[in-house]
Amino acid sequence: MTPNRLEAFSDGVFAIAITLLVLDLKVPGTDSEHTLGHELLANWPSYAAYVISFMTIGIIWINHHAAFSRLRAVDHSILIWNLALLMTVGILPFTTSLMAEYLKESQGEGLAAAVYAGSFLLMGGVFVGANRHILFHRPQLLKEPLSEAAARRTLHYAALGQIPYLIATLLAFVTPYITLAICAGCAIYYSLPVASRAGEGGQSDANIA
Amino acid sequence: MTPNRLEAFSDGVFAIAITLLVLDLKVPGTDSEHTLGHELLANWPSYAAYVISFMTIGIIWINHHAAFSRLRAVDHSILIWNLALLMTVGILPFTTSLMAEYLKESQGEGLAAAVYAGSFLLMGGVFVGANRHILFHRPQLLKEPLSEAAARRTLHYAALGQIPYLIATLLAFVTPYITLAICAGCAIYYSLPVASRAGEGGQSDANIA
Amino acid sequence: MTPNRLEAFSDGVFAIAITLLVLDLKVPGTDSEHTLGHELLANWPSYAAYVISFMTIGIIWINHHAAFSRLRAVDHSILIWNLALLMTVGILPFTTSLMAEYLKESQGEGLAAAVYAGSFLLMGGVFVGANRHILFHRPQLLKEPLSEAAARRTLHYAALGQIPYLIATLLAFVTPYITLAICAGCAIYYSLPVASRAGEGGQSDANIA
Amino acid sequence: MTPNRLEAFSDGVFAIAITLLVLDLKVPGTDSEHTLGHELLANWPSYAAYVISFMTIGIIWINHHAAFSRLRAVDHSILIWNLALLMTVGILPFTTSLMAEYLKESQGEGLAAAVYAGSFLLMGGVFVGANRHILFHRPQLLKEPLSEAAARRTLHYAALGQIPYLIATLLAFVTPYITLAICAGCAIYYSLPVASRAGEGGQSDANIA
Repeated sequence: MTPNRLEAFSDGVFAIAITLLVLDLKVPGTDSEHTLGHELLANWPSYAAYVISFMTIGIIWINHHAAFSRLRAVDHSILIWNLALLMTVGILPFTTSLMAEYLKESQGEGLAAAVYAGSFLLMGGVFVGANRHILFHRPQLLKEPLSEAAARRTLHYAALGQIPYLIATLLAFVTPYITLAICAGCAIYYSLPVASRAGEGGQSDANIA
Repeated sequence: MTPNRLEAFSDGVFAIAITLLVLDLKVPGTDSEHTLGHELLANWPSYAAYVISFMTIGIIWINHHAAFSRLRAVDHSILIWNLALLMTVGILPFTTSLMAEYLKESQGEGLAAAVYAGSFLLMGGVFVGANRHILFHRPQLLKEPLSEAAARRTLHYAALGQIPYLIATLLAFVTPYITLAICAGCAIYYSLPVASRAGEGGQSDANIA
Repeated sequence: MTPNRLEAFSDGVFAIAITLLVLDLKVPGTDSEHTLGHELLANWPSYAAYVISFMTIGIIWINHHAAFSRLRAVDHSILIWNLALLMTVGILPFTTSLMAEYLKESQGEGLAAAVYAGSFLLMGGVFVGANRHILFHRPQLLKEPLSEAAARRTLHYAALGQIPYLIATLLAFVTPYITLAICAGCAIYYSLPVASRAGEGGQSDANIA
Repeated sequence: MTPNRLEAFSDGVFAIAITLLVLDLKVPGTDSEHTLGHELLANWPSYAAYVISFMTIGIIWINHHAAFSRLRAVDHSILIWNLALLMTVGILPFTTSLMAEYLKESQGEGLAAAVYAGSFLLMGGVFVGANRHILFHRPQLLKEPLSEAAARRTLHYAALGQIPYLIATLLAFVTPYITLAICAGCAIYYSLPVASRAGEGGQSDANIA
């Protein structure tokens, strides 16, 4: 299999997962006792979660491309690592929905937020693992050899990016709002030009996740 | 990342969002007191909204291609602008469903229609913003340089196309039917050859939204 | 826009519509008074409709490719014709679900079956219209010129293919089972090698729908 | 149609089916009498089924590529075989959901598990059939001729891979957990490097399914 085909398939999964997020936005029932305006406003966690998850998946897609475009060929082990990564991307519509639905509940809201940030952490962890596998165990499949120092820098940068998600997961049990805020902050940071420049310093493909 | 890959990913999101619209068409329950014919006819707002949203997404897809095919390369900022645009496309199945479900209600119908037209306006606004960013802030990434006059004409044409959606949003509170009619009119106009010719006069990629 | 990009986008819509058909297969509730085996067997119209719709969409996809691969370029009018065709493909998960749910009801079953076959007829009609537009109004966009006789033969063959769907739509009010049988028969016929050969006699891209 | 286009369309269906699996993960209702943690843990069959089905579809996608990348051209019969294969892939979100929902029930759990493993068996059977058709009935369409011995080895290897699914289907009526375990074991086995090497011995494209 060529890297191009792997990328095209992965692009499909990213595009579908990102678009399925909309299914978490529910139309308020027409038989509610509240006005539609009230109902829509009360659904703000769903919109916040939609935007955060959309941008986060979008950014991991950018990084996925950067990481896999370095390859001139793929073997079975890389295909399986990629599948594992896509599997963690595929569950995000579920964890996003879970968070949105429980954010304002008085019970389960901490766990729901922990699962939400935890799913980003899982995705990031698998991304770091896939990168590590490519850079250190399959260097012969790279288009251009990378010095060990550069490879380490890339990995460190990617691993560092997981720390906010780890904190967001742990703090979920204090209040889910801080979790939401940290995840939003990460999405904003990686959308800014500064993240791109920082990434180029390390390795531009390690911007996130 | 090459413009081709950005386009392929974007095409995926457009194709999924446009096809997910069908999920807003609900099969009437078999336990209704009315005949199926009556139930299906009563659902006409869903069919109207499906057709209008389908054509509108299709036309923005055409314009997306025209705008991004001008690029010989993309940078981080363009990727993020594109993600923001796709995010506004991705919510259309939700706003379409909202409009269809509330159109004939006696409460909330104005707000639902305003959200519907407003989501087209948002998408159009981000499209204008992305175009502006490309033409004025990243001219060095264009395949062929565009004179400032031509760039301005392109932007003006795209921005003008938002006026009907702005009017449709505002008039939603008078009656949602006028909103539906204006959005339908826009979809029809941009489907006609005349829109294409007008676009070529300005810039063919600025046909809509 | 190149024909390739139009095809890639169209492929996406076909692939999504065909895969969304699975959402019509519902898992029986665990609180039913009947055994699961009984419930699954009682759902046979859903499985039949899934198979028929899947193969029919698959075959129209094959024909779509044949028709559009003749083009060396596309213009605005062809893009719009293509969008209209995709719109009729996009509603098939809905009409399939409608048919499956009403097939065994004692009320509405005829109308549901008529809508089902009618949606195939609509898709086929738009396909014939798109073909007609390409062959007779945009011959200058074809890769290779087609004699008027050959163009007529192609169109006739495609139009003839609609007759069974027209009959299936009309007979739906007699009994929906005959509608299902005719649609199944068409899917089987176009899957056989004989259909391919017949198509080559006329024009291989006019096999169906 | 070129093999590339067939692959791109098939990739789309694989990517959508694999991503739709997430729709089987349901957010627990906020009005449950149990804690969210309890509800999420009680849903473990859904997560297990998600992971197993995701990896199984991923692996059949790898094998699909290997099998179809041997072709230099496709004819009508290969397109129809491919559609039949995609149809069996497309139903997996349904059978996965069925298994997950019934696994812990006291009635129907055996049948649900049998349908689950049976759907893998069906997919595998159609894959073997498609391979057989290509290797023995359309050898003239292969890029490179394959000796009859090699073709037989490839088919045997693919057919052997169905035996665990056959056993899993039959044992479902003893206990559905053994079915789940066997399907999980297959997914793990084919993810390991050893499966890749074994496949290369036979034919690397016959690894599974």
